[in-house]
This record gives sequence, structure tokens and C-alpha cells, in this order.
Amino acid sequence: MNILVVNPNSTESMTRKIVDSARQAASADVTITGATGTGAPASIEGHYDESMAVPALLACVQRAEDAGVDGIVVACFDDPGIGACREIATGPVLGICEAAVKAASMLATSFTVVTTLPRSVPVIEHLIHGYGLSHQCRKVRSAAIPVLALEEPESNAREKVRDEILRAIEEDHCEAVVLGCAGMADLTAWLSEETGIPVIDGVSVATRMIEALVGCGLKTSKINAYSRPNQK
Amino acid sequence: MNILVVNPNSTESMTRKIVDSARQAASADVTITGATGTGAPASIEGHYDESMAVPALLACVQRAEDAGVDGIVVACFDDPGIGACREIATGPVLGICEAAVKAASMLATSFTVVTTLPRSVPVIEHLIHGYGLSHQCRKVRSAAIPVLALEEPESNAREKVRDEILRAIEEDHCEAVVLGCAGMADLTAWLSEETGIPVIDGVSVATRMIEALVGCGLKTSKINAYSRPNQK
Amino acid sequence: MNILVVNPNSTESMTRKIVDSARQAASADVTITGATGTGAPASIEGHYDESMAVPALLACVQRAEDAGVDGIVVACFDDPGIGACREIATGPVLGICEAAVKAASMLATSFTVVTTLPRSVPVIEHLIHGYGLSHQCRKVRSAAIPVLALEEPESNAREKVRDEILRAIEEDHCEAVVLGCAGMADLTAWLSEETGIPVIDGVSVATRMIEALVGCGLKTSKINAYSRPNQK
Amino acid sequence: MNILVVNPNSTESMTRKIVDSARQAASADVTITGATGTGAPASIEGHYDESMAVPALLACVQRAEDAGVDGIVVACFDDPGIGACREIATGPVLGICEAAVKAASMLATSFTVVTTLPRSVPVIEHLIHGYGLSHQCRKVRSAAIPVLALEEPESNAREKVRDEILRAIEEDHCEAVVLGCAGMADLTAWLSEETGIPVIDGVSVATRMIEALVGCGLKTSKINAYSRPNQK
Amino acid sequence: MNILVVNPNSTESMTRKIVDSARQAASADVTITGATGTGAPASIEGHYDESMAVPALLACVQRAEDAGVDGIVVACFDDPGIGACREIATGPVLGICEAAVKAASMLATSFTVVTTLPRSVPVIEHLIHGYGLSHQCRKVRSAAIPVLALEEPESNAREKVRDEILRAIEEDHCEAVVLGCAGMADLTAWLSEETGIPVIDGVSVATRMIEALVGCGLKTSKINAYSRPNQK
Amino acid sequence: MNILVVNPNSTESMTRKIVDSARQAASADVTITGATGTGAPASIEGHYDESMAVPALLACVQRAEDAGVDGIVVACFDDPGIGACREIATGPVLGICEAAVKAASMLATSFTVVTTLPRSVPVIEHLIHGYGLSHQCRKVRSAAIPVLALEEPESNAREKVRDEILRAIEEDHCEAVVLGCAGMADLTAWLSEETGIPVIDGVSVATRMIEALVGCGLKTSKINAYSRPNQK
Repeated sequence: MNILVVNPNSTESMTRKIVDSARQAASADVTITGATGTGAPASIEGHYDESMAVPALLACVQRAEDAGVDGIVVACFDDPGIGACREIATGPVLGICEAAVKAASMLATSFTVVTTLPRSVPVIEHLIHGYGLSHQCRKVRSAAIPVLALEEPESNAREKVRDEILRAIEEDHCEAVVLGCAGMADLTAWLSEETGIPVIDGVSVATRMIEALVGCGLKTSKINAYSRPNQK
Repeated sequence: MNILVVNPNSTESMTRKIVDSARQAASADVTITGATGTGAPASIEGHYDESMAVPALLACVQRAEDAGVDGIVVACFDDPGIGACREIATGPVLGICEAAVKAASMLATSFTVVTTLPRSVPVIEHLIHGYGLSHQCRKVRSAAIPVLALEEPESNAREKVRDEILRAIEEDHCEAVVLGCAGMADLTAWLSEETGIPVIDGVSVATRMIEALVGCGLKTSKINAYSRPNQK
Repeated sequence: MNILVVNPNSTESMTRKIVDSARQAASADVTITGATGTGAPASIEGHYDESMAVPALLACVQRAEDAGVDGIVVACFDDPGIGACREIATGPVLGICEAAVKAASMLATSFTVVTTLPRSVPVIEHLIHGYGLSHQCRKVRSAAIPVLALEEPESNAREKVRDEILRAIEEDHCEAVVLGCAGMADLTAWLSEETGIPVIDGVSVATRMIEALVGCGLKTSKINAYSRPNQK
Repeated sequence: MNILVVNPNSTESMTRKIVDSARQAASADVTITGATGTGAPASIEGHYDESMAVPALLACVQRAEDAGVDGIVVACFDDPGIGACREIATGPVLGICEAAVKAASMLATSFTVVTTLPRSVPVIEHLIHGYGLSHQCRKVRSAAIPVLALEEPESNAREKVRDEILRAIEEDHCEAVVLGCAGMADLTAWLSEETGIPVIDGVSVATRMIEALVGCGLKTSKINAYSRPNQK
Repeated sequence: MNILVVNPNSTESMTRKIVDSARQAASADVTITGATGTGAPASIEGHYDESMAVPALLACVQRAEDAGVDGIVVACFDDPGIGACREIATGPVLGICEAAVKAASMLATSFTVVTTLPRSVPVIEHLIHGYGLSHQCRKVRSAAIPVLALEEPESNAREKVRDEILRAIEEDHCEAVVLGCAGMADLTAWLSEETGIPVIDGVSVATRMIEALVGCGLKTSKINAYSRPNQK
Repeated sequence: MNILVVNPNSTESMTRKIVDSARQAASADVTITGATGTGAPASIEGHYDESMAVPALLACVQRAEDAGVDGIVVACFDDPGIGACREIATGPVLGICEAAVKAASMLATSFTVVTTLPRSVPVIEHLIHGYGLSHQCRKVRSAAIPVLALEEPESNAREKVRDEILRAIEEDHCEAVVLGCAGMADLTAWLSEETGIPVIDGVSVATRMIEALVGCGLKTSKINAYSRPNQK
């Protein structure tokens, strides 16, 4: 089984981290191919970055599709361009926000999301409203760190994320925590241990859920909304 | 007052029609500038077309912003890239779906949307869910015509739209109808007359609502979600 | 274009303030006519006051309707009697709560309402639930001032409103603020400046939105719910 | 125990029918006092009639309150002025729509409402949305009869109501039916028998539910929204 | 009229307390029969206890049904097995959570629930979501006491409940409080007095509401979802 | 990896079919253990059957838990006792309704469920409301067949299911179909082929999603709602 994991921003170090997480999560017989959004913004912080990143993402998806990929993970927590990817893909496509919050809803009655910047909070709230899980989402919190701080070992970004999770447990009474940025994927194990609560990383979960869908022979519906783009 | 009206697809004849509608609706002292999504798909039929159209749309918005525009109308019923436009704009930005359904909710207790292709129905339902107006929307219907058929005088697109409105009145008991495509803007008066129900065209309504917001001195909030894109 | 702006309570000084705000917001070619709810309670603080104010409001609307008015603003944040006004009016009718929260939802992803008394909070929450915007409303707050304190220059009502807005920014992370009482209309500019956030006054916004609807040739739907009252 | 049952319209024959239903439903030791909305419209068909009926309703409630009534039923399916009544009442107050749909939700997983005129359908849908029961309401249907036709023995109003219920069972797969007009109260037993489905009349149910609340020593909350009207 | 009040857990002292409350609330001509969930867990704290308690509850209901009972109250705030009880009962069946929150919604615009253990909070939130009253529920709070502490006079359980109610009034601005455990039934009067807010006990309210439904001749719908269990 | 797949009813032939489907879907290195709800009803058709089946289900889960199982699938579309299973399980637990509708929401913008008997329709609607996916569920339909008809080769149950799917495509405009009974698991491939739409079987999907969650190292949250049952 071949799964494409796209990092829609242009930061290669983040792609490496994401692909590592996906590979660690994937079954032995799954081949994970990484891709980076060449020409996209260096990080996706808000609607503008997201919009500017989508064409490169779609190009990655089209190339993989042409090569016969079985399923696709879009590794940015804003779930950019998912509908468009689903139109051009044959197999299933998952964004990491959708995968992570749906997984959280299977493991706990409530969850809190911890993301990077405050400006992403309403974006994620809107996604969760669309996924129908607002009633299980206690809060979307920001650790007040830029996305790229997660790439700098000397920044104290991971401690900030941990502290925000601890505040979430204390104040929100959440039963699980969802990491609200693909760049946090490598912190999952450490954060689980530090906080004693299920910590859900969308990259691993989306990878395994794509495996699950492909494994069941399921593909993106080609009736109506996700049918292939119309020729003009 | 200067208002930019962008047609995010690349079909110039549609831009002309849209700008005509906006000008007819606008107050005497308002200058309407039209723009076309050069390089974008010829029509926006689904998520892929939408995603591919947004960068050109953002370029139009940025140019107008640099020239000191007061407000912006995005004239495609899928409301593409609105959040991204709001990040780079100082003044208010409105998509024609948001404007039209919110106007409809001020004139009637319920409305039906009549759009072009079936594949756009779920896209519009999702938008209306996000705008919080699902409980006032009786149905989103498709007249089963490609967008560009609206540009061909010899097609019977306008009759198909009228017939679908008549079915909506009969079957949905809706009290108003929203036209679900910018390319229908020039049919509004004729359709109102033929059907005897308020028929709402998003292009005119969005133009006048932008006037309203600008006239009140209101601008896009620059706190949090719609603040300017972060420098990396 | 002729627009009626009704203050449904019987306090004339409030009518003057409201009409001033409406005139300042209106386009040059619009004639604003004010009206006061003669015989109504001096202020509308809760359901009882609201119910007792509506017959006088409807009389004002009927008189304006007979005189050929184009559109109507009901300038009380509880949006009293809107459905009834819409039944007897030909043109569009807007309450200032509906206008303000829908405007807020066009400028920001979230807003907080600041009103006068705690007893009005659930009334406004119920309205916003009906308008479908609960998911964008961070909170409805009260500044704990009676409505008529806004008419007394020596009261520190305006400082209390400002302080409540500052608390809203700090605690609710709202991106815009809606003033929850027509009597606050004259404070809008000052409050915007003091707080650095878009502050939305329903009186101006409703006036300009009525202009927008009338300008598009749109009228209240006369099919079904808002058709003229039945003769018995 | 003393319960006031108000018919908010001015048609005395309807009051008699309503009071009869309430008395039949009430426990032996309960005194039912009827009241008619003198000066109100002859029937309540839409928002305007409703608004014009409320002041007389409030006067009835105030008189009963002064006489020490224990609880109050407002016998019109549009639930007019309930919030205002609750402000001036000490005991509990119920509208027949609220009582009936909440009762229906205790007896069946879904229900359909059958009302008189099409124009009342959106009014009732809005009420049910506010009561949070839209997900259990299959449909609000109109039997297309004016309210006062229910007072004319020679009209075939009752047959029309029965036929609409039969259509509801067939098409909506509802498990119970709610009668959407106080004037249908006397048809309940006959309709149950003819249709074989639980048929719920709001007048009886509201009367007995008021008994229930009073019997438990419960009164309208006087904290916040339903506290007594402010003195100006 | 004969009403069965079942305590689905196996603690007899709790049954006595519950039956006392039901009898105190019931009308003079109503016979209350108590029953205990023999073999069930000693208290219902979470989903597992609830599931293990239901078969004994259903046996109690079946026995009462065979004896011709008129209506049934299930006296546990998790509303266990209500759908199953409704399938085997002819008369109406109410859980005390459903009864209490629907009563609260008739007396106040908002309420807070105070329950025993934190683990019950999400269970109750889920119930209220299903009953459609999330928008009126300010918060579900736990007093952090095991259910059986309510049976021990020397525990300070009642003071903890009172203190939690006082916090709810202060922090949630709720207008009524619902007691979130059948074991709190005997504290109702004392808590109302101590806190000055309507305090709603589900046992009394459910008993009187069952009386109300039976008094109106209403029974559980036998069409579809609540029809008798299928013979295999 | 060891996964338990429980058929909560007592029909062994159904267990065999379910285990076959799970094994076919599972990865090579996964051991599927089947279990049957000994003593439970022969099929689960409604709330009563469901409640009576849960204790045996919990016993199966406890035995597997004691034997160190990694994850659990509850193979009945009513998702019986899931919360209780989650309390006693260490690993993740999924019902096939939750798994299937969440999978459907990843592959299509809308889906219809086709189940066996009409009485199960409201049960499933209620589940989907709780999972937050009502806005993506076009309809829950019944093929009007008893569950056990699916076990009789000579019944034309499979043709009835196919025909209902074809009606769903035609009338609901759904983009995917979810099979609403574990007993339909073996029809999936045939139904997909016959109807040309993604047909989703909860047994396979739940099995692979449990694999996914276990593969990511995720377990049921033991904070709060799903913590182990309290010792009394």
C-alpha cells in the first residue's frame, strides 16, 4: 500500500519530521512517500497562507495520483484544500485535523485542541463545527508560539505546549488532547508521558486511518461533490 | 467610495455581466471596479476549481488594496478565499453567498437556493451551515446547467432556472429564492417577474452591503483571525 | 429613499440620539424620519416592556407605510415585534440586533455583545440563537447599567460600557464588539477609539442595510409568514 | 389549586371550548378560571395578530396574579407573550405549544404538528427551534383552514385535520401528532380514535403540566430574565 | 392512578427516600409503588453501572406493567434504559433527568445541573444534548461526592451540594438549579431555602409529570420506535 | 495485535459472518477473536433487545480484557453499551455505527443509512445526532426486513437492501451508503457492484479503525467518563 503524506508548507525540516511520524505509525507493508509544498509559504498561519499553499498541494496530489497512490494524508492542521484533493484523488484523502478530532471522539467524551498561534484558533473552531464535533470539543487553545518555533530546538516551544495541555486538563476538564499542528508530531510520546492523558497526533492517526479505509477497499465517492473536476 | 468586484473565474463575459449588475445596484457616488481571475479556471464548479482560482483572486485584492479600495465583493457563489481576502484587506470583504443568504434571512422566514450543477449543492449547503442559516434554508437545488451555459444566449439556461424556482415554490414552500451563481445576476428582474417571489442576486446585494459597512466606517477586524498574514 | 427609524420606547431624548446616528450613517439622498413609541414604557428592559411597546411600534410602522416609506429600522436591541412589522410593511424591516450581529459576522470570526442590564442577556442570547449565530458569539455581557442611565450625562455609564468591552477583549478573545442597546449609538466612535476593536452600533448598521436592501429593489416577502394580516 | 387558562384572542366560543378541555383534563381539586383577550384579534394568525393580542393577555394575567392564581396556561399555539407573562407571574406559566411538544417528546421519538394556516408553519417551526426539539419534529403541517373555521360546525375543518394527520403518518413516519391550534382541543379524542396514533392537545397537557409544577412547589424563577418588570 | 417509581440501583435506603419524595409530590388519589433494582450495582456512577442496572429495572417495569400500572418513573439521573422501558410499558415512562431539565426550561431561561461525581458530568451533558436543551444548560457541575455519601448523615454531602449551587449562581448566572442525582431528592426544600433559587428535584417533577400525561389519557406511542419488543 | 469482535446477539451464524468480514478486512498480523452474546436476544431490534444484550456483551469484553486484548469492535449497528465497554477496556472500543458513519464522512459529503426494520430508524438517527453527523446524513432508511431474514438464503433480503440503496441514490442524492446492520456485512462487495456507489460496512471499517488506533498507541482515556467502574 502506498500512502502520500504531504506537508503543504515549504519547510523541508517539517516534512522530514512529519514523514518520520507517519512511517513510525504505519504498518510494515505500507510505503510512505513524503512531499513538500514547494513554493508555498514556509508555515501555514491563517487563511492567506492556507490559500497560497493549496495549488502546490494539489500538484503533489496529482503527481501521486498519476503514480497510482492508494491514499493521501494532508499534514497541516488547517485541513487545507481537502475537498479539492478529494476531487482529483481516487483513494481516500484525510486532513490531520479531521482524523485527529474524529479519533479523539472515539477515545474520550471530550477533548481540547492545543495549537500554535491565537489566529489559528477560530480557523480550527470552524473546522470542528463543520465536522460536527463542537459539542465534544471543550476548547481550542493556543500555546502562543509561531509554527516555525517548533523547528528550533533551542526555543522552549515544547514546554509551552506541555504547559498549555496541563492548563487544559485543569481548566477544561478535557479527557484527551489533540495536537493542533503537524509540527508537533514528534512531541506526542513525550507529551503523553508528561501529562498522563491521551495525546493525539493527527499525522499518525491520519496515516493509519487512511490505511484503514484503503484496507477496506474504500475510495473517495465519485458521485456529485467529489467527482473529478469538470472539463471546460 | 471605491468597491472592487472580482469575478474569480477567467471568463471575461461573466465579469462584464457581474460588473453591470454591481453598477446598477450601487449608489451614484460609488465607483465599481471589476477584475477577472486571470489564469483561473473558466468557471468554478466544485472544490478544485475554487482552490485553483484563489491565488489570482488574492492578487486582484492585493492590487486593489494597494490602490486604496474601500471594500471588496467576491462574485462567486462558493465564496472562495474569503478568509484570505479578509486578511489582506483593510475594508470589509463579502462573498455573494454570504451576502445573499443573510439578506434572504432578513426578508423571509425561509429561502431556497437555486444553483447550476448538482456538484455545487453540497458546497453551498456546507457554506450555509457555517453561516448558521441551515434552519432557514429549505433546500439547495440545482437547475442542472453548467455555469458557462449562462453565457450562451441560445441555451435555455434561464428557462431551466425559472422552472426550478417554480418547483421550489411548489415543493419547498420557500418564501424567497437565492440565485446560486454570479452568472445569473442579469436574470434577477426577469425571474422575479416570472415567479412572483423575492429573487435575490448575491452580486447586487453584496455590493450594497459592502457600501453599508463602509458607510458606517466599519472595517475588517484586525485582531486575531483576520489580522494581516504573518511575515515568516 | 425614505427610511423610518422607530424608537419603540417613549423616551424622546433617546429618539433624538438614535435619529442622529441614523442620519449620520445614511447616504446623502436618504430621508430619515424618526418616531417614538408614544405610550410605551420609558425603556425596554425585558419581555414585559417589550410586549407593551409593540402596539405603539406597529402604529408608527402603519403610519409610515401609509405614507409610502421604503424601509424600516426598529431601534431597540431586543428586536421587538419584527415579524409583526414585516407583515404590515411593504419594504424591508430590520431590528438593530439582527443587523448588528449579521454585520459583525461579516467583519470578524467572533464577537461579544455588551448590553445594559443582566436581565437582557438571555433575551439577546435567544435572539442570536434564532439568527443562527451562537457559534460566532463569544458572550453576551451586561455592563450593569439601566437603559436610562445612558441618557444621564453625569452617570458613568459610558465608562462602564468601555470597561466591559475591555474585559471582553481580554477574557472572550472576541474580534469585534456589538453594542447591545440603541441608547449606546452615540458612543460608538469613542468606544472604537478607546478599545481599538471594531465596535458595531446596530442603529447605523441597520439603517445602511435597509438602504442596501431597498437599493437592490428587495422587499419583504409577501408569501406565507410575512403576508399581510388576515382580515377576520 | 387555581389555574388561569387564557384564550388570547377575543372569540368567546373558543374560550368556552378551551376551558372545557382544561376542566376535563384537570384534577378534581383544581379550579380552572377562563379568560378571553378582550379587544384582541378574533383569531391569532401570524405575528401581527399575536403582537396585538399580548397586552390584553397580560392584563388577564395581572388580574389573576392579583387574585392569587397558582399557575397560568396561555392557550394559543403561537405561545404569545410567554416571557412577559412569566415576568409578572409568581407561579409557573406555560404556552400550549411548549407543553405539547415537550409532552410529545416524552411519548415518542418523533412527532408532527398539524396546524391551521400555512402562514403559521414558520412561526411554529421557529418556536420548536427555540425549544430545542427540531430534531424530533418531523414536520409542521397546515390543514389549510382558517382558525375560525374550527368554530363552525358546518365547515369540514375536522375532516381536513384528520386527513392531514393521516398524511403525516404515511409520509413523515411520525410517532405522535401535536394539534397546532387551541381551537382543535375538542377534536382530540375523535382524532386519536380515527388515526390510531397519540394525538396531543396542548390545552389539556399544559393544564396538567402546570398542575405538576405547582404541585411540586415550583415557581417561575425571579432571578434575571423573568424577574418582575423594572420600575422606571 | 398507580405510578411505579423504580430506583434502578440496589440500595434500599435510597429507594425509601425516593418513594417518600414521590409520595410527597403526588396527588392524593395517586398510589406510588416503589421498587429497587435487586442485583443491580449499589449506585449508578457511570456507563457500566448503568448498563448492569437495566435488566433488573426492566424486570420491575414488566411486573408493574403486568399488574396494570398507569405510568412509570425511573429514578436515576442518568435516565437508564428509558427507551427499553417505553417499549414494554403501555403508559408513559419518564427518567428524572428528562423530567427535571424540561421542567427547568419552563421556569427559567437557563439552568445548571449539580451532580455527584465528575465522571457523571459527560453522561448528563450527552443526555441534555439529546433532549435538545444544551442551549439552556449553563453548566453541568459535580459536587465531587460519591452517590452513597448522600446516604450517610455524618458526611457533609449536603453542604457540598449547597456550596456548588452557590458557585453556580455566582459563576454561571443560571436562573434555576437541577439536582443531578435521585439521592438528593430529600434536600430540595432545604437547598431552595439556603440558595434562594428554584431548585428542581427530578423525582417529584417526574412523578407529577407522569400524573399529568396519564391524566390527559396519553400513553407511550406504539408506532415504530417504542412498539413492543419483536418476538423472534 | 489482538482484536475482539463481539456480536452482541446470540445468533451464532451471524457471529461467523461478522468474524469472516472482520478477518477479511484485518491486516495479516492481526488476530481476530469472535464472541457471541450468549443468552442475549437472537437479534437486536430496538431498545429492549439492546438493553438485554449488554450484560453478556460486557462479560465478553471483560474476558477479552483479562486476556490482554488490544482493541474491541462491538458488531451491532445500534452501538449498544459502548460507554460501558470503554470503562472496562484498556484499549480502544468502537461500535460499527460510529465507525461507519465517521468513515462515510471522510469519503463523501453526504450519506444515507439503510437498515433493517423501521423501528431501528429513530435509534440510528439518535446515534448520528450524538455523533454530530446529522448534517451529513441525508436519511436513515429501512429495507423493511427483520434482522434474521439476512440469515436465510432463501429470503430476498439482499435484493430488498439493494433496491433501497437504489432508491436512496435516486431520492436522497446521497454520495455514499452505510449498511445499517452487522448482518449485512457479507453483502458489501455485491452491493457496491450493483449500485456503483461506495457502500460502507461497519464491521470491516470498525476493525480497521481499531487497528489504526491501536497502531498509534492510543487507548481509551481513563480520565473521567471512561475511567474504570467505581468500587462500591
